[in-house]
Amino acid sequence: MNNVLVVGSVALDTLETPHGRADNALGGSATHFALAASRFAPVRLVGVVGKDFPREHIEMLKAQKIDVTGLEIADGKTFRWHGRFVGDMSRAETVSVELNVLATFQPKVPASFASTPFVLLGNASPDVQLAVLNQLKGPKFVMLDTMNLWISTQRAALLTLLPRVDAVCINFEEALQLAETTSGAKAVRKILDLGAKMLIMKRGEHGATLATRDGQFTSPSFPTDRVVDPTGAGDSFAGGTLGYLAQAGGEKDAIRKAIIYGSVMGSFAVEEFGTRRIQTVTREEIETRARAILDMLSV
Amino acid sequence: MNNVLVVGSVALDTLETPHGRADNALGGSATHFALAASRFAPVRLVGVVGKDFPREHIEMLKAQKIDVTGLEIADGKTFRWHGRFVGDMSRAETVSVELNVLATFQPKVPASFASTPFVLLGNASPDVQLAVLNQLKGPKFVMLDTMNLWISTQRAALLTLLPRVDAVCINFEEALQLAETTSGAKAVRKILDLGAKMLIMKRGEHGATLATRDGQFTSPSFPTDRVVDPTGAGDSFAGGTLGYLAQAGGEKDAIRKAIIYGSVMGSFAVEEFGTRRIQTVTREEIETRARAILDMLSV
Repeated sequence: MNNVLVVGSVALDTLETPHGRADNALGGSATHFALAASRFAPVRLVGVVGKDFPREHIEMLKAQKIDVTGLEIADGKTFRWHGRFVGDMSRAETVSVELNVLATFQPKVPASFASTPFVLLGNASPDVQLAVLNQLKGPKFVMLDTMNLWISTQRAALLTLLPRVDAVCINFEEALQLAETTSGAKAVRKILDLGAKMLIMKRGEHGATLATRDGQFTSPSFPTDRVVDPTGAGDSFAGGTLGYLAQAGGEKDAIRKAIIYGSVMGSFAVEEFGTRRIQTVTREEIETRARAILDMLSV
Repeated sequence: MNNVLVVGSVALDTLETPHGRADNALGGSATHFALAASRFAPVRLVGVVGKDFPREHIEMLKAQKIDVTGLEIADGKTFRWHGRFVGDMSRAETVSVELNVLATFQPKVPASFASTPFVLLGNASPDVQLAVLNQLKGPKFVMLDTMNLWISTQRAALLTLLPRVDAVCINFEEALQLAETTSGAKAVRKILDLGAKMLIMKRGEHGATLATRDGQFTSPSFPTDRVVDPTGAGDSFAGGTLGYLAQAGGEKDAIRKAIIYGSVMGSFAVEEFGTRRIQTVTREEIETRARAILDMLSV
């Protein structure tokens, strides 16, 4: 069984959407990713929380086959994010951010995790991501996430990382920003020209595109009409993709199916606040949606 | 050979984009549609122009297998539109519109066109579209286009048309407006609930979705990175779709492939100002892009 390692943020979120509000919900990109990936493969998590982090969340993660040996409990408070989605919920407004213990976090990959074959370098500064990459021993497939902040402030460092990983997984707007263009098609070519071996470009409810020098694949999103909270949809997409790829042993022809499973996990993630829906989704429910997407792709 | 009938606008456009400017370019939704559809099947056009309409455009349309028996040359000036695309060119700014002879146009379908099997009711007021529908004799497949203006001002009349046609072909924003929602997935269900037998929802560079009560299909757009002028892309998409469907004899299993050919024609349309690219594209170029999209869909 291939393991998946994720290094990233664990948070307590306050979430407001047109459908209600959740206070101190379990969040963070590593959390959403890990829960989605754990549906397919055993997951190892490296992150940091504060002394205020509820014990029940740790128990829940453990119960979901997630190894939290690498979850440091530091002096101080857990990273907190307060976000608000209005209107069509296409963008989050950040009401407040408290980095807390995340501000000075230097991830240490436990020796027992160093040889994990499938790895997500979760959203962090390129320097931190590079430091994590240098702790890995012969990974089979490394996926890189990033965000608008690093694209604009740490561009050079980010560009040196691109050729060193197997895939960069970002959303459409981030891809445009990274490629300095307003066209998705141009962004794809430019990012491959910048040295990325594979680009996974998330288009929200319009689907996702996988691109390499050999060709492209596009999966539609699963058309759920129950969007309660978009938080974590992109992380759950990445978790479903990398989790499925690990389950399939990383074979090259599994990557297109992996994108479909990513889309499925993203569609479940939005149906409840925080991680609730991903915590309860069954493999049977996942397969039903994967079959629906396969049908949407068949000519 | 199955014919295609289009009833809609013929225009002289002034177009400004970040790539330049074209004055008095041949335009109009029926023109873009007809030229795209003519790559697949013989096309009949019903529309109106003024005495100022250049004879060379009429000769060009004729040379492209388009029957212009139904193109009325009325006293007055041709419909003119001046549009400007800025930034990412995702939306046109209308600089000016002169309806001219289009203002009072009541389309008359020539007797020789009345039994055409494949029909596009081009963008016009629902009353005008209904009057055209009532002149048709046993059409096999009628596709309806509309726009934000009619959705907001002629909603009731438009809703009575939906169940009377075989497909409604609109863009994503129009679908949200028609369904009074901010979710694409909800819009699809609502529009089917409103009585549409088939919805074709154009997502611009994110592709297009075909939806019926039996299921959905999504085609990616062909990722051209040469977007010079988006004018007519949606009309060319509709022309490619209905033209291919006519060529295939309207068989139910041809509709998914038809959407792919629509996407291909939309991708060519944007590569030059006005109708220039669609006028010169070869069937071989079309097939090359159709194969590329099929590869983007294969799992």
